[in-house]
Amino acid sequence: MKHLPFDALMELESGVIDEASQVINRRLSDMPSFFHDQDAVQAQLEEDPVLYRTYVKQNPISSSLWNIGSSVIEPGTVGNEYFMTKGHFHLKEEAPEVYFTVSGSGRLLLQKHSGEIEVKKMAPGVINYIPGGWAHRTVNVGEKPLIFFAVWPADAGHNYGAIEEMGFSRLVVNDRGVPKIIDNPRYAPGLVK
Amino acid sequence: MKHLPFDALMELESGVIDEASQVINRRLSDMPSFFHDQDAVQAQLEEDPVLYRTYVKQNPISSSLWNIGSSVIEPGTVGNEYFMTKGHFHLKEEAPEVYFTVSGSGRLLLQKHSGEIEVKKMAPGVINYIPGGWAHRTVNVGEKPLIFFAVWPADAGHNYGAIEEMGFSRLVVNDRGVPKIIDNPRYAPGLVK
Repeated sequence: MKHLPFDALMELESGVIDEASQVINRRLSDMPSFFHDQDAVQAQLEEDPVLYRTYVKQNPISSSLWNIGSSVIEPGTVGNEYFMTKGHFHLKEEAPEVYFTVSGSGRLLLQKHSGEIEVKKMAPGVINYIPGGWAHRTVNVGEKPLIFFAVWPADAGHNYGAIEEMGFSRLVVNDRGVPKIIDNPRYAPGLVK
Repeated sequence: MKHLPFDALMELESGVIDEASQVINRRLSDMPSFFHDQDAVQAQLEEDPVLYRTYVKQNPISSSLWNIGSSVIEPGTVGNEYFMTKGHFHLKEEAPEVYFTVSGSGRLLLQKHSGEIEVKKMAPGVINYIPGGWAHRTVNVGEKPLIFFAVWPADAGHNYGAIEEMGFSRLVVNDRGVPKIIDNPRYAPGLVK
């Protein structure tokens, strides 16, 4: 579909994109090391809940072609840590990404290689601009699915490893029903550049 | 805000983006030559209705920085031609744009310099991908405002002149309450490259 217009329908209730070229379905067993409470991980692995789904409509790889997609983060926690995405840097460091939240309530963690971190709110109508060089993770802090639309360059690529190794310096946890940002005791900066 | 994350709130009911860096307010008197029925234009110029508003949050000019914005096309017609945007090419021909419709019912006209044309539907949840090289105009064919979110590269630029001179080869008109695509009798290909 290079240089050809296309359209896609994102079902607003479910976040599903019809005719997505890629559907990612992440369960707890796909990312057990990402949560800080490993006892809780072990206890929940039998049920192995779906944490999130991502629907992608891909273009050929080019900086002047963009991909579009949607993500649906389910509500829930692993221990006290809210369901969240793995989070990643783009392989092409300067590649930005834009989120437009359709429904639900979330937090967006943004972290540079240098360790600089920002935490943004996600709510219906909120546009989050993620510049190049910032790893990004989304967290559902509400009781309904967190559903958002995303745009990123087709040549951005994904670097999941850096975040898997070092983590984000902050966690988003459910503190008696209220989302709270706390330091990540397992944060390991410098492990991976 | 170069390379710094930012967020913005698009009010879903109104389409207004708080803290927009630019607000464009287009009335009929800003674009009288764009409608085919010039008698109707003259008759409606006294009232001079607002046709659309665009809210933009701009980044510094760079291909790796993007702008975000929203557009609100009012319902109505000039003669039998629905309210619409001027439409433009990007000055940087390869620059794409993505629309995400939040509410209302519309048509997206897409046209290349070669004259190739496509007409797409806009409705809540519809994502329209506009590749580089395609001029784009949005038309409100419903009875409520057509509200959509947009992303485009900060260095895309706007070329309104080509469309002002040659027009799109199709018009979207209200034919006894139903939107109809008809040939534009004033279409002048080749006038402007």
